[in-house]
Amino acid sequence: MASLYPVSMRRLINELTKLPSVGDKSATRLAYHLITRGRHDGLALSAAIQEAIEKVSLCKVCHFIAEGEVCPICQDERRNRRLLCAVEKPADVIALERSGGYRGLYHVLHGVWSPLKGVGPEQTRMQQLLERLNPERSTPQTDDPLQLPLEELILATSTTVEGDATALYVANAVQSMGVVVSRLAQGLPKGGELEYADELTLHLSLEGRRSL
Amino acid sequence: MASLYPVSMRRLINELTKLPSVGDKSATRLAYHLITRGRHDGLALSAAIQEAIEKVSLCKVCHFIAEGEVCPICQDERRNRRLLCAVEKPADVIALERSGGYRGLYHVLHGVWSPLKGVGPEQTRMQQLLERLNPERSTPQTDDPLQLPLEELILATSTTVEGDATALYVANAVQSMGVVVSRLAQGLPKGGELEYADELTLHLSLEGRRSL
Repeated sequence: MASLYPVSMRRLINELTKLPSVGDKSATRLAYHLITRGRHDGLALSAAIQEAIEKVSLCKVCHFIAEGEVCPICQDERRNRRLLCAVEKPADVIALERSGGYRGLYHVLHGVWSPLKGVGPEQTRMQQLLERLNPERSTPQTDDPLQLPLEELILATSTTVEGDATALYVANAVQSMGVVVSRLAQGLPKGGELEYADELTLHLSLEGRRSL
Repeated sequence: MASLYPVSMRRLINELTKLPSVGDKSATRLAYHLITRGRHDGLALSAAIQEAIEKVSLCKVCHFIAEGEVCPICQDERRNRRLLCAVEKPADVIALERSGGYRGLYHVLHGVWSPLKGVGPEQTRMQQLLERLNPERSTPQTDDPLQLPLEELILATSTTVEGDATALYVANAVQSMGVVVSRLAQGLPKGGELEYADELTLHLSLEGRRSL
Protein backbone atom coordinates (compact mmCIF):
# COMPACT_ATOMS: atom_id res chain seq x y z
CA MET A 1 0.00 0.00 0.00
CA ALA A 2 3.02 2.23 0.52
CA SER A 3 3.12 2.04 -3.28
CA LEU A 4 0.44 4.73 -3.21
CA TYR A 5 3.27 7.12 -2.47
CA PRO A 6 4.97 8.45 -5.58
CA VAL A 7 8.24 6.83 -6.68
CA SER A 8 10.51 9.65 -5.51
CA MET A 9 8.88 9.63 -2.05
CA ARG A 10 9.38 5.86 -1.80
CA ARG A 11 13.00 6.21 -2.82
CA LEU A 12 13.52 8.86 -0.14
CA ILE A 13 11.92 6.65 2.52
CA ASN A 14 14.10 3.75 1.44
CA GLU A 15 17.30 5.81 1.65
CA LEU A 16 16.31 7.15 5.07
CA THR A 17 15.84 3.63 6.47
CA LYS A 18 19.53 2.99 5.74
CA LEU A 19 20.45 5.46 8.48
CA PRO A 20 21.27 3.89 11.85
CA SER A 21 18.22 3.38 14.10
CA VAL A 22 15.76 4.74 11.54
CA GLY A 23 12.93 2.29 10.84
CA ASP A 24 10.11 2.38 8.30
CA LYS A 25 7.84 4.56 10.42
CA SER A 26 10.51 7.11 11.32
CA ALA A 27 11.68 7.22 7.71
CA THR A 28 8.13 7.90 6.49
CA ARG A 29 7.71 10.64 9.09
CA LEU A 30 11.03 12.24 8.14
CA ALA A 31 10.24 12.04 4.41
CA TYR A 32 6.81 13.60 5.01
CA HIS A 33 8.46 16.41 6.95
CA LEU A 34 11.06 16.98 4.24
CA ILE A 35 8.56 17.33 1.40
CA THR A 36 6.09 19.51 3.31
CA ARG A 37 7.11 21.88 6.11
CA GLY A 38 10.79 21.02 5.78
CA ARG A 39 11.30 21.69 2.04
CA HIS A 40 13.65 24.60 2.52
CA ASP A 41 15.68 22.89 5.26
CA GLY A 42 15.64 19.69 3.22
CA LEU A 43 17.50 21.28 0.32
CA ALA A 44 20.07 22.66 2.77
CA LEU A 45 20.39 19.20 4.35
CA SER A 46 20.88 17.56 0.96
CA ALA A 47 23.66 20.03 0.15
CA ALA A 48 25.25 19.64 3.60
CA ILE A 49 25.38 15.84 3.30
CA GLN A 50 27.06 16.07 -0.10
CA GLU A 51 29.52 18.74 1.02
CA ALA A 52 30.49 16.89 4.19
CA ILE A 53 31.03 13.61 2.33
CA GLU A 54 33.16 15.38 -0.26
CA LYS A 55 35.26 17.45 2.12
CA VAL A 56 35.56 15.47 5.30
CA SER A 57 37.87 12.53 5.77
CA LEU A 58 39.79 11.06 8.68
CA CYS A 59 43.05 12.54 9.98
CA LYS A 60 45.75 10.28 8.60
CA VAL A 61 47.61 10.39 11.91
CA CYS A 62 45.00 9.99 14.66
CA HIS A 63 41.89 9.14 12.55
CA PHE A 64 39.80 11.92 14.06
CA ILE A 65 37.50 13.78 11.66
CA ALA A 66 39.31 16.38 9.58
CA GLU A 67 38.89 18.44 6.44
CA GLY A 68 42.59 18.39 5.63
CA GLU A 69 45.02 15.48 5.88
CA VAL A 70 45.95 16.17 9.50
CA CYS A 71 43.46 17.35 12.14
CA PRO A 72 43.89 20.52 14.27
CA ILE A 73 44.58 18.47 17.41
CA CYS A 74 47.58 16.72 15.86
CA GLN A 75 48.78 20.10 14.57
CA ASP A 76 48.44 21.85 17.93
CA GLU A 77 51.98 22.38 19.20
CA ARG A 78 50.91 23.29 22.73
CA ARG A 79 49.77 19.75 23.42
CA ASN A 80 51.74 17.18 25.35
CA ARG A 81 53.11 14.95 22.61
CA ARG A 82 54.20 12.21 24.95
CA LEU A 83 50.64 11.47 26.05
CA LEU A 84 48.27 9.41 23.91
CA CYS A 85 44.62 8.61 24.56
CA ALA A 86 42.82 5.87 22.57
CA VAL A 87 39.05 6.30 22.18
CA GLU A 88 36.29 4.47 20.33
CA LYS A 89 34.84 7.28 18.23
CA PRO A 90 35.25 10.97 17.36
CA ALA A 91 32.46 12.01 19.74
CA ASP A 92 34.59 10.66 22.61
CA VAL A 93 37.38 13.08 21.67
CA ILE A 94 34.87 15.94 21.93
CA ALA A 95 33.69 14.64 25.32
CA LEU A 96 37.25 14.47 26.70
CA GLU A 97 38.10 17.92 25.32
CA ARG A 98 34.97 19.29 26.96
CA SER A 99 36.09 17.86 30.31
CA GLY A 100 39.17 20.06 30.10
CA GLY A 101 41.20 17.39 31.85
CA TYR A 102 43.38 16.22 28.98
CA ARG A 103 45.95 17.98 26.84
CA GLY A 104 47.68 15.13 25.03
CA LEU A 105 47.13 13.53 21.63
CA TYR A 106 44.45 11.07 20.55
CA HIS A 107 43.97 7.92 18.55
CA VAL A 108 40.43 7.14 17.35
CA LEU A 109 39.84 3.39 16.99
CA HIS A 110 36.51 3.70 15.11
CA GLY A 111 35.00 0.74 16.84
CA VAL A 112 35.68 -1.81 19.54
CA TRP A 113 36.55 -5.44 19.46
CA SER A 114 33.21 -7.27 19.50
CA PRO A 115 33.39 -10.98 18.63
CA LEU A 116 29.60 -11.35 18.94
CA LYS A 117 29.05 -8.75 16.20
CA GLY A 118 31.91 -10.15 14.15
CA VAL A 119 34.08 -7.07 14.70
CA GLY A 120 37.71 -8.02 15.22
CA PRO A 121 40.73 -5.79 15.82
CA GLU A 122 41.29 -5.57 12.05
CA GLN A 123 37.94 -3.80 11.54
CA THR A 124 39.09 -0.98 13.79
CA ARG A 125 42.13 1.31 13.62
CA MET A 126 43.90 -0.77 16.26
CA GLN A 127 46.73 -1.83 13.94
CA GLN A 128 47.41 1.83 13.17
CA LEU A 129 47.62 2.50 16.92
CA LEU A 130 50.19 -0.25 17.39
CA GLU A 131 52.18 1.10 14.45
CA ARG A 132 52.20 4.56 15.99
CA LEU A 133 53.56 3.10 19.23
CA ASN A 134 56.22 0.96 17.61
CA PRO A 135 59.61 2.53 18.35
CA GLU A 136 60.91 1.28 14.99
CA ARG A 137 58.00 2.69 13.01
CA SER A 138 58.04 0.67 9.80
CA THR A 139 56.48 3.33 7.56
CA PRO A 140 58.03 6.67 8.37
CA GLN A 141 55.06 8.80 9.43
CA THR A 142 56.73 12.18 9.42
CA ASP A 143 53.41 13.89 10.20
CA ASP A 144 52.84 12.09 13.48
CA PRO A 145 53.61 14.54 16.29
CA LEU A 146 53.77 11.69 18.81
CA GLN A 147 57.13 11.61 20.58
CA LEU A 148 58.38 8.24 21.68
CA PRO A 149 58.97 6.93 24.27
CA LEU A 150 55.51 7.80 25.59
CA GLU A 151 54.83 9.00 29.10
CA GLU A 152 51.52 7.18 29.09
CA LEU A 153 48.91 5.52 26.89
CA ILE A 154 45.40 6.08 28.26
CA LEU A 155 42.83 3.52 27.11
CA ALA A 156 39.58 5.50 27.21
CA THR A 157 37.26 2.95 25.61
CA SER A 158 33.78 2.56 27.12
CA THR A 159 33.27 0.56 30.30
CA THR A 160 31.29 -2.05 28.38
CA VAL A 161 32.36 -5.65 27.85
CA GLU A 162 33.59 -4.74 24.36
CA GLY A 163 35.36 -1.62 25.60
CA ASP A 164 37.09 -3.59 28.37
CA ALA A 165 38.07 -6.36 25.96
CA THR A 166 39.51 -3.84 23.51
CA ALA A 167 41.50 -2.13 26.26
CA LEU A 168 42.85 -5.49 27.42
CA TYR A 169 43.78 -6.42 23.86
CA VAL A 170 45.72 -3.19 23.34
CA ALA A 171 47.36 -3.43 26.77
CA ASN A 172 48.60 -6.93 25.93
CA ALA A 173 49.82 -5.92 22.49
CA VAL A 174 51.90 -2.98 23.74
CA GLN A 175 53.29 -4.84 26.76
CA SER A 176 56.56 -5.63 24.99
CA MET A 177 56.98 -1.97 24.01
CA GLY A 178 57.44 -0.90 27.61
CA VAL A 179 54.66 1.69 27.47
CA VAL A 180 52.88 2.83 30.64
CA VAL A 181 49.23 1.96 30.06
CA SER A 182 46.25 3.23 32.08
CA ARG A 183 42.49 3.00 31.98
CA LEU A 184 39.97 5.70 33.04
CA ALA A 185 38.78 5.44 36.64
CA GLN A 186 35.48 3.69 37.25
CA GLY A 187 33.22 4.56 40.16
CA LEU A 188 30.33 6.76 41.15
CA PRO A 189 29.45 9.50 38.68
CA LYS A 190 29.52 13.09 40.01
CA GLY A 191 26.19 13.86 41.68
CA GLY A 192 25.41 10.15 41.87
CA GLU A 193 23.67 8.89 45.00
CA LEU A 194 24.95 5.73 46.62
CA GLU A 195 21.41 4.45 47.06
CA TYR A 196 20.80 4.37 43.33
CA ALA A 197 24.21 3.11 42.16
CA ASP A 198 24.22 -0.40 40.69
CA GLU A 199 26.13 -3.14 42.50
CA LEU A 200 29.00 -3.37 40.03
CA THR A 201 29.66 0.37 39.99
CA LEU A 202 29.62 0.42 43.79
CA HIS A 203 31.96 -2.56 43.88
CA LEU A 204 34.36 -0.82 41.49
CA SER A 205 34.17 2.44 43.43
CA LEU A 206 35.15 0.57 46.60
CA GLU A 207 37.99 -1.25 44.90
CA GLY A 208 39.33 2.00 43.46
CA ARG A 209 38.92 4.09 46.62
CA ARG A 210 41.55 6.76 47.23
CA SER A 211 43.04 7.91 50.49
CA LEU A 212 42.43 11.55 51.33
CA MET B 1 34.50 21.90 21.81
CA ALA B 2 32.32 20.67 18.96
CA SER B 3 34.24 23.33 17.06
CA LEU B 4 37.00 20.73 16.81
CA TYR B 5 34.88 19.18 14.08
CA PRO B 6 35.54 20.67 10.64
CA VAL B 7 33.10 23.31 9.33
CA SER B 8 31.31 21.04 6.87
CA MET B 9 30.74 18.41 9.57
CA ARG B 10 29.32 21.07 11.91
CA ARG B 11 27.04 22.33 9.16
CA LEU B 12 25.79 18.81 8.54
CA ILE B 13 25.11 18.27 12.25
CA ASN B 14 23.27 21.58 12.38
CA GLU B 15 21.07 20.71 9.41
CA LEU B 16 20.30 17.28 10.86
CA THR B 17 19.09 18.77 14.15
CA LYS B 18 16.37 20.57 12.17
CA LEU B 19 14.72 17.21 11.49
CA PRO B 20 11.85 16.34 13.83
CA SER B 21 12.95 14.50 17.00
CA VAL B 22 16.64 14.63 16.11
CA GLY B 23 18.71 16.18 18.90
CA ASP B 24 22.38 17.12 19.05
CA LYS B 25 23.58 13.65 19.98
CA SER B 26 21.55 11.84 17.32
CA ALA B 27 22.61 14.40 14.72
CA THR B 28 26.27 13.89 15.58
CA ARG B 29 25.85 10.12 15.38
CA LEU B 30 24.08 10.37 12.01
CA ALA B 31 26.70 12.76 10.63
CA TYR B 32 29.49 10.45 11.81
CA HIS B 33 27.78 7.53 10.07
CA LEU B 34 27.30 9.52 6.85
CA ILE B 35 30.93 10.55 6.52
CA THR B 36 32.40 7.15 7.45
CA ARG B 37 30.61 3.86 6.79
CA GLY B 38 27.63 5.53 5.15
CA ARG B 39 29.40 7.63 2.50
CA HIS B 40 27.94 5.76 -0.45
CA ASP B 41 24.41 5.69 1.00
CA GLY B 42 24.81 9.31 2.05
CA LEU B 43 25.26 10.49 -1.51
CA ALA B 44 22.18 8.51 -2.55
CA LEU B 45 20.25 10.04 0.37
CA SER B 46 21.33 13.55 -0.59
CA ALA B 47 20.11 12.97 -4.16
CA ALA B 48 16.86 11.36 -2.97
CA ILE B 49 16.04 14.32 -0.72
CA GLN B 50 16.59 16.76 -3.56
CA GLU B 51 14.62 14.70 -6.07
CA ALA B 52 11.67 14.18 -3.74
CA ILE B 53 11.49 17.87 -2.85
CA GLU B 54 11.61 18.82 -6.52
CA LYS B 55 9.10 16.27 -7.79
CA VAL B 56 6.64 15.68 -4.98
CA SER B 57 3.83 18.03 -4.07
CA LEU B 58 0.35 17.64 -2.63
CA CYS B 59 -2.63 16.51 -4.70
CA LYS B 60 -4.59 19.67 -5.39
CA VAL B 61 -7.87 17.88 -4.73
CA CYS B 62 -7.34 15.74 -1.62
CA HIS B 63 -3.88 16.99 -0.47
CA PHE B 64 -2.39 13.50 -0.38
CA ILE B 65 1.20 13.20 -1.60
CA ALA B 66 1.47 13.13 -5.38
CA GLU B 67 4.00 13.60 -8.15
CA GLY B 68 1.45 15.04 -10.56
CA GLU B 69 -1.31 17.54 -9.85
CA VAL B 70 -3.87 14.91 -8.89
CA CYS B 71 -3.03 11.73 -6.94
CA PRO B 72 -3.82 8.17 -8.14
CA ILE B 73 -6.55 7.75 -5.51
CA CYS B 74 -8.53 10.74 -6.81
CA GLN B 75 -8.02 9.43 -10.35
CA ASP B 76 -9.18 5.89 -9.55
CA GLU B 77 -12.61 5.52 -11.17
CA ARG B 78 -13.44 2.31 -9.33
CA ARG B 79 -13.71 4.12 -6.03
CA ASN B 80 -16.96 5.17 -4.37
CA ARG B 81 -17.08 8.88 -5.09
CA ARG B 82 -19.86 9.59 -2.65
CA LEU B 83 -17.77 8.56 0.34
CA LEU B 84 -15.16 10.87 1.86
CA CYS B 85 -12.75 10.17 4.69
CA ALA B 86 -10.85 12.99 6.43
CA VAL B 87 -7.49 12.05 7.97
CA GLU B 88 -4.69 13.93 9.70
CA LYS B 89 -1.73 12.95 7.55
CA PRO B 90 -0.74 10.98 4.45
CA ALA B 91 0.47 8.00 6.53
CA ASP B 92 -3.13 7.58 7.76
CA VAL B 93 -4.30 7.11 4.17
CA ILE B 94 -1.75 4.32 3.78
CA ALA B 95 -2.95 2.75 7.06
CA LEU B 96 -6.60 2.80 5.96
CA GLU B 97 -5.75 1.43 2.51
CA ARG B 98 -3.78 -1.36 4.15
CA SER B 99 -6.84 -2.26 6.25
CA GLY B 100 -8.70 -2.99 3.02
CA GLY B 101 -11.92 -1.74 4.60
CA TYR B 102 -12.40 1.50 2.70
CA ARG B 103 -12.89 2.25 -0.98
CA GLY B 104 -13.96 5.89 -0.99
CA LEU B 105 -12.05 9.14 -1.44
CA TYR B 106 -9.87 10.97 1.07
CA HIS B 107 -9.11 14.42 2.36
CA VAL B 108 -5.80 14.95 4.15
CA LEU B 109 -5.98 17.73 6.74
CA HIS B 110 -2.21 17.94 7.36
CA GLY B 111 -2.62 18.60 11.05
CA VAL B 112 -5.20 18.82 13.76
CA TRP B 113 -6.69 21.69 15.64
CA SER B 114 -4.45 22.18 18.68
CA PRO B 115 -4.99 25.46 20.56
CA LEU B 116 -2.18 24.63 23.02
CA LYS B 117 0.33 24.41 20.18
CA GLY B 118 -1.14 27.45 18.46
CA VAL B 119 -2.51 25.39 15.56
CA GLY B 120 -5.93 26.58 14.48
CA PRO B 121 -8.17 25.30 11.68
CA GLU B 122 -6.53 27.73 9.27
CA GLN B 123 -3.15 26.02 9.65
CA THR B 124 -4.65 22.78 8.35
CA ARG B 125 -6.48 21.97 5.11
CA MET B 126 -9.83 22.17 6.88
CA GLN B 127 -11.10 25.10 4.83
CA GLN B 128 -10.39 23.14 1.65
CA LEU B 129 -12.43 20.26 3.08
CA LEU B 130 -15.40 22.52 3.75
CA GLU B 131 -15.09 23.95 0.23
CA ARG B 132 -15.16 20.46 -1.24
CA LEU B 133 -18.35 19.72 0.69
CA ASN B 134 -20.12 22.95 -0.21
CA PRO B 135 -22.88 22.12 -2.69
CA GLU B 136 -22.38 25.53 -4.33
CA ARG B 137 -18.63 25.13 -4.72
CA SER B 138 -17.40 28.69 -5.11
CA THR B 139 -14.32 27.90 -7.18
CA PRO B 140 -15.22 25.32 -9.80
CA GLN B 141 -12.92 22.41 -9.04
CA THR B 142 -13.48 20.35 -12.13
CA ASP B 143 -10.83 17.85 -11.07
CA ASP B 144 -12.56 16.86 -7.84
CA PRO B 145 -14.15 13.44 -8.42
CA LEU B 146 -16.31 13.88 -5.31
CA GLN B 147 -19.99 13.57 -6.14
CA LEU B 148 -22.38 15.57 -4.01
CA PRO B 149 -24.57 14.95 -2.12
CA LEU B 150 -22.28 12.64 -0.13
CA GLU B 151 -23.36 9.31 1.30
CA GLU B 152 -21.11 9.84 4.28
CA LEU B 153 -18.20 11.85 5.63
CA ILE B 154 -15.98 9.73 7.89
CA LEU B 155 -13.87 11.72 10.35
CA ALA B 156 -10.85 9.48 10.87
CA THR B 157 -8.68 11.78 12.96
CA SER B 158 -6.79 10.26 15.89
CA THR B 159 -8.57 9.50 19.15
CA THR B 160 -6.52 12.16 20.94
CA VAL B 161 -7.93 15.34 22.45
CA GLU B 162 -6.80 17.25 19.34
CA GLY B 163 -8.21 14.62 16.99
CA ASP B 164 -11.55 14.63 18.79
CA ALA B 165 -11.67 18.44 18.81
CA THR B 166 -10.94 18.56 15.09
CA ALA B 167 -13.64 16.00 14.33
CA LEU B 168 -16.13 17.98 16.43
CA TYR B 169 -15.17 21.20 14.66
CA VAL B 170 -15.70 19.69 11.22
CA ALA B 171 -18.93 18.00 12.29
CA ASN B 172 -20.30 21.35 13.47
CA ALA B 173 -19.16 23.15 10.35
CA VAL B 174 -20.86 20.72 7.95
CA GLN B 175 -24.07 20.40 10.00
CA SER B 176 -25.90 22.90 7.84
CA MET B 177 -24.87 21.03 4.68
CA GLY B 178 -26.96 18.02 5.63
CA VAL B 179 -24.02 15.59 5.35
CA VAL B 180 -24.06 12.28 7.23
CA VAL B 181 -20.99 12.40 9.46
CA SER B 182 -19.38 9.49 11.30
CA ARG B 183 -16.37 8.81 13.45
CA LEU B 184 -14.27 5.61 13.60
CA ALA B 185 -15.34 3.13 16.30
CA GLN B 186 -13.38 3.22 19.55
CA GLY B 187 -12.91 0.15 21.71
CA LEU B 188 -10.61 -2.78 22.35
CA PRO B 189 -7.93 -3.33 19.72
CA LYS B 190 -7.89 -6.75 18.02
CA GLY B 191 -5.89 -9.17 20.17
CA GLY B 192 -6.19 -6.84 23.15
CA GLU B 193 -6.77 -8.39 26.53
CA LEU B 194 -9.40 -6.88 28.80
CA GLU B 195 -7.05 -7.08 31.75
CA TYR B 196 -4.56 -4.71 30.16
CA ALA B 197 -6.98 -2.25 28.57
CA ASP B 198 -7.00 1.23 30.08
CA GLU B 199 -10.15 2.44 31.82
CA LEU B 200 -11.21 4.91 29.13
CA THR B 201 -10.88 2.41 26.30
CA LEU B 202 -12.88 -0.13 28.29
CA HIS B 203 -15.50 2.50 29.05
CA LEU B 204 -15.78 3.38 25.36
CA SER B 205 -15.93 -0.28 24.34
CA LEU B 206 -18.85 -0.78 26.73
CA GLU B 207 -20.63 2.31 25.51
CA GLY B 208 -20.23 1.23 21.91
CA ARG B 209 -21.12 -2.44 22.41
CA ARG B 210 -22.98 -4.13 19.58
CA SER B 211 -25.70 -6.75 19.76
CA LEU B 212 -24.83 -10.05 18.08
